[in-house]
Amino acid sequence: MRFSVGCELQYEAITETTLILNIEAQRSSGQRLFEDRYTGPSGDVYEVPETGNRYRRLILAPGTHNFRYRAIVDTHPVRSIPDEVQETPVGKLPFDVLPHLYASRYCPSDLMARFAWRQFGNLGSGHEKVQAICNWIFENVDYLEGSSDGSTSAHDTFTLRAGVCRDFAHLGITLTRAVGIPARFVSAYALELTPQDFHAVFEAYLGGRWYLFDATRLCPIDGIIKIGVGRDAADTAFATYFGQLTGPPKVVTVERLGNVANQEWTVDAVSLSRQ
Amino acid sequence: MRFSVGCELQYEAITETTLILNIEAQRSSGQRLFEDRYTGPSGDVYEVPETGNRYRRLILAPGTHNFRYRAIVDTHPVRSIPDEVQETPVGKLPFDVLPHLYASRYCPSDLMARFAWRQFGNLGSGHEKVQAICNWIFENVDYLEGSSDGSTSAHDTFTLRAGVCRDFAHLGITLTRAVGIPARFVSAYALELTPQDFHAVFEAYLGGRWYLFDATRLCPIDGIIKIGVGRDAADTAFATYFGQLTGPPKVVTVERLGNVANQEWTVDAVSLSRQ
Amino acid sequence: MRFSVGCELQYEAITETTLILNIEAQRSSGQRLFEDRYTGPSGDVYEVPETGNRYRRLILAPGTHNFRYRAIVDTHPVRSIPDEVQETPVGKLPFDVLPHLYASRYCPSDLMARFAWRQFGNLGSGHEKVQAICNWIFENVDYLEGSSDGSTSAHDTFTLRAGVCRDFAHLGITLTRAVGIPARFVSAYALELTPQDFHAVFEAYLGGRWYLFDATRLCPIDGIIKIGVGRDAADTAFATYFGQLTGPPKVVTVERLGNVANQEWTVDAVSLSRQ
Amino acid sequence: MRFSVGCELQYEAITETTLILNIEAQRSSGQRLFEDRYTGPSGDVYEVPETGNRYRRLILAPGTHNFRYRAIVDTHPVRSIPDEVQETPVGKLPFDVLPHLYASRYCPSDLMARFAWRQFGNLGSGHEKVQAICNWIFENVDYLEGSSDGSTSAHDTFTLRAGVCRDFAHLGITLTRAVGIPARFVSAYALELTPQDFHAVFEAYLGGRWYLFDATRLCPIDGIIKIGVGRDAADTAFATYFGQLTGPPKVVTVERLGNVANQEWTVDAVSLSRQ
Repeated sequence: MRFSVGCELQYEAITETTLILNIEAQRSSGQRLFEDRYTGPSGDVYEVPETGNRYRRLILAPGTHNFRYRAIVDTHPVRSIPDEVQETPVGKLPFDVLPHLYASRYCPSDLMARFAWRQFGNLGSGHEKVQAICNWIFENVDYLEGSSDGSTSAHDTFTLRAGVCRDFAHLGITLTRAVGIPARFVSAYALELTPQDFHAVFEAYLGGRWYLFDATRLCPIDGIIKIGVGRDAADTAFATYFGQLTGPPKVVTVERLGNVANQEWTVDAVSLSRQ
Repeated sequence: MRFSVGCELQYEAITETTLILNIEAQRSSGQRLFEDRYTGPSGDVYEVPETGNRYRRLILAPGTHNFRYRAIVDTHPVRSIPDEVQETPVGKLPFDVLPHLYASRYCPSDLMARFAWRQFGNLGSGHEKVQAICNWIFENVDYLEGSSDGSTSAHDTFTLRAGVCRDFAHLGITLTRAVGIPARFVSAYALELTPQDFHAVFEAYLGGRWYLFDATRLCPIDGIIKIGVGRDAADTAFATYFGQLTGPPKVVTVERLGNVANQEWTVDAVSLSRQ
Repeated sequence: MRFSVGCELQYEAITETTLILNIEAQRSSGQRLFEDRYTGPSGDVYEVPETGNRYRRLILAPGTHNFRYRAIVDTHPVRSIPDEVQETPVGKLPFDVLPHLYASRYCPSDLMARFAWRQFGNLGSGHEKVQAICNWIFENVDYLEGSSDGSTSAHDTFTLRAGVCRDFAHLGITLTRAVGIPARFVSAYALELTPQDFHAVFEAYLGGRWYLFDATRLCPIDGIIKIGVGRDAADTAFATYFGQLTGPPKVVTVERLGNVANQEWTVDAVSLSRQ
Repeated sequence: MRFSVGCELQYEAITETTLILNIEAQRSSGQRLFEDRYTGPSGDVYEVPETGNRYRRLILAPGTHNFRYRAIVDTHPVRSIPDEVQETPVGKLPFDVLPHLYASRYCPSDLMARFAWRQFGNLGSGHEKVQAICNWIFENVDYLEGSSDGSTSAHDTFTLRAGVCRDFAHLGITLTRAVGIPARFVSAYALELTPQDFHAVFEAYLGGRWYLFDATRLCPIDGIIKIGVGRDAADTAFATYFGQLTGPPKVVTVERLGNVANQEWTVDAVSLSRQ
C-alpha cells in the first residue's frame, strides 16, 4: 500500500533551545520511502541502528521556526493468521528484545501481573492474547480528550478508565509485558485518524517479529506508518526540547495513494518490522 | 447471638509515649455489652457521640505495659431482605452521612467513578450493588498476607489485585462511594477468623441504616462485633501512638456462647447500626 | 474589621442534579454576620454543630440556575503573639480534634513524617513551627495556575513544587500533621486576592484554638472570612454535585468596609475559631 | 587496583523456570578480568555490545541449583579533578546517550525538574552538580533496611526520605536527569560494604565519559567493580526469572588484593567507562 504522509510544525523558541525531532518515517524492508524530504533548520541527524528511529537535532536561536516533512511510503507488511502467531518462550527470546519485558516510566508492568495473568494468561496464541488485551482496553477504557496528561501512567489509566491514544498504548504495553510478552511503544502516521494527528500504537514481539496493535480502533492496523519505537512515550516523543519553546501549531497529513477501492479493515496480524 | 470477645496486648514504650486504644466493643441498640472490662494502665476515655467509638488514651512511661479487654456482647442485628434494601438518594441523605461519600486517604473514590458506574451502576437495589462490589472483589483480588503495607490505598489494590482484610474493606468503600452510596470502615471482632485477629470490614448507608459488608468472606456477617467506625483505616486503628513503641504481641479471642447448633452463614442484610 | 463578601454562581443542569453548596460565611464568636442573604433555588439547609459549616442542598431540574450570596461580616479575631502560641501535647488534645492528626485524601501525612520532623521538628513554639512550614512552602513551591488538578495530593505537590492555593493548603496541612499538630482545610473569602475568587487556607490547632495560616502570602491573614472547614478539599468544596452540571461562571467579591487607612499586614497569630 | 570478587547463589526452582543472571563483572578498558569463572548450570550467554553487560540465561528444571562466580579484576579508572569535569550540552551529546535523559520506571525525572533546577541548577561543573545531588541525598535521606520494596520509585523516596542503596541510586539518577545530565543505574561489587552484598550506584555522563557516583557513602568510589548498567533497577537486576523460584541464599565477596596500605577514600572523579 502506498501512502503520502507528512507534517508541518511551527515552534517559537524563547531562548536558545535544542530540539530533537523524531517525525520522519522509518526505513525498513516493511516501509520503503520515496521522496522523503525534510525542510527546515539544519542540524545533525541520526538513525538508530537497532530500531530505525530517525532523529534530527536542531539548535534553535530565539524566534519562530518552521519544519516540514513529506514522504511517499510503500508498506510491505508481513501478514499472518492471528491464531498462528505464537509467543516466543522467554528462554528463546533474542537478548536485545528482553528489555521490552521490563517495566518503564509509563508502563509499570510489575504492578499488573496478577490481573494480566488471570484475565489473559490462558488464552490461545500470543497474538490472540495481545488482541484480547486490546479488546479489553477498548471495551473498558473511554477514549476521552483531556482526560490525561504527561504524567499519566498505565497504573492511572487502569484505575481511571479514560485516556487518549498514548494511554491506550501504555496500558496495552503494560498488560502485554505483564503476561511475559515483550512490547514497545510506536509513534506513527495513521490513516483515517480524525482529527488527523500523530498517533500512538504498540508492538508485541511474537513469532520472531514485532506485530502492530492498536487498542483504540481509530484506524486500520495496515494504515500505520511507523515513525519511532521505544520503551514508552518517554522514549518516543515526536519532539523533545531543552530550553524554552512554545508551540507547536501543527498539521499532520496521511493519505492513501493509488487505486484505492473501498476497503475493509484487515483482520490479519500485521508486522512492519525489519525482523 | 451472644459472644465473648477480648484481646491481650503488650507494648514496650522506648520513650514516654501517648497511646490511643480503640479496642472496646461499641455499645448500641444493636450491641449490648455485659461484663465489659478493660485492665491496664489508666488514662482518659472518650465515647464519640456520633459514632459510638470508644477511645482510651494512655500516657506510657518507658517500659513494658500490658492491656487486656474482655466483654460479653449480645448482638441484636436488624435483618433485612437484601433486594429490599434500597439506597437513599443523595438529596435525602442525612447531612452528617454525606462526608462518607467523599474520598479519603486510602479510598480515593474520585478516581474510580467510571469503573464503578460501568460495572455496578445498573444493578438492582442498593444492597445488591454493594454485594456485587463485594463479590467482584472476592473474585478478582487475592487474599495474601504480606502483599500490602500501611501506605497501600484502594488505587494500589485495584491494580495489584492482592491485599488483606483492610485492603478489601478499602476497595469496597471506594467502589461503594464511587457509585454514590456512603460507606465507612469498621474495625471489628469477628467469629471464625483464622488465625484469630482484629478484622476489618465496612458499612454502607442504605435504607436509613448502616449495613455491614465483608468482601473477604472470612467470617459470617452476623459474627461481626463492631469496635470502631471511620472514613478508612487512617481513622480507625485499634492502636495509634505518638512516641516510640514496639509491639504488640497480641491475642484476640472471639467465641460464640450459648446453645449453638451448627449454623449456616446468613444471607440476610445485617445492620448493627444505632440508626 | 468589617467586610462585605459575596458571590454569584450560574450552573446549567443537564439532568436532574443534586447540588450541595457551601458558600455562606460561618457564624461564630469570631465572625458575626449581618445582612446574610442567599438568593436562588430553595432547598434544605444544615449548619454542622461541630464546625459551623453551612450547607444548602438543592435539587435542580434541567436548565440554568442562578445563585447569589451576600453578607456583611464583622470579624473579631483572637490575636496572639506567635512565639507564645504553644502546641498542645497529644495527650491533652480534645478527642474531637484528634482526627485532624490523621492522613486524608489529599494530605498523606503518614508519608512525610521524616521530612517534617527533620526540617521543622526542633523549632520553637507550635505557631513558629507551622509558620516555618508556610515559609518553606512559599520559598520552595511555585504558585502556578494550571499546574495541578482535582487528583493532585500533597505527595505530588511536594515533588512537583508547583500548585495553587488548594495545593499550598494541602501541603501545609500534611506537614503540620506530620509534626504532630492537628490541621484542617479552610475555604474562605479573602481580601485582596487577585483575581478575586474563593480562597483556600488552613488552620492548625494550637494553644486550644484553631489558628489560621496561608502559605500563599496572597492576602493578609486577618482578611480571611471562613466558609467551610474539613479534613481537606474532599470535604470542603464550595459546590458538590451528583448528576450533570456545567459551570459555573462565577463572581466572588470581598471588600473591606468602614474607615480603612492603608494598613500593614498583621504579624499576629490570628484565630477566628469558636474555640 | 586489584580485587577478588565473587558470589554464590542458591535457588530452588518450583516449576521449570527461566533465570537470567547478570552477576559477572564487565570487561572493559577500565576493568580487566583474570580468572573470570562461572560454575553452575549451563545456558546461553550474551554480552551486550553497547554496555558490556554480561547475561547468562538458564532454563532450570524443578529442584535446587547452585551458582558460583569468581573473578580477579584489575581496575584502571580514569581519574579527573571534579571541578574540571564539565557536562556536555544536550546539543553535543552522543545520540545513543540521549535515552539516559528520559524518565524510567523508578526514575520519574519529568516530575522533579523544578526542585532539581532550583536546588542544583546553578552549581559549577557538571561533576560538582551531581556530587551536590549525592550530598543532598546523603544528608536528607535515611539509609534504612526494610523501608522500601520493589515498587518504590524516586518519587516515593523523595517524599519518604528513607531507602536502601537502590533507592539512593534511583533518586540520584532522577535528579541528575532532571538537571539535564544523562544518568544510569549501575549494579556492582563494592569494597568495604557491610554487610557484604551486591551494591547499587549510578553513573552520570560528563565530559564524554560515564563517571561513578554513590550517594550512600558506604564504600569508596574507586572500590566499585561494575556488573550491569541500565536505565534503572528494572533493567539491571542481578537475577530475573520467569517461572517460580525461591531463594537466594547468597554470599557476596569483595576483597582488595596486593600490597594494600591503609588508604584514604579518593576525592577524584572516577570513571570505569569504556568511553
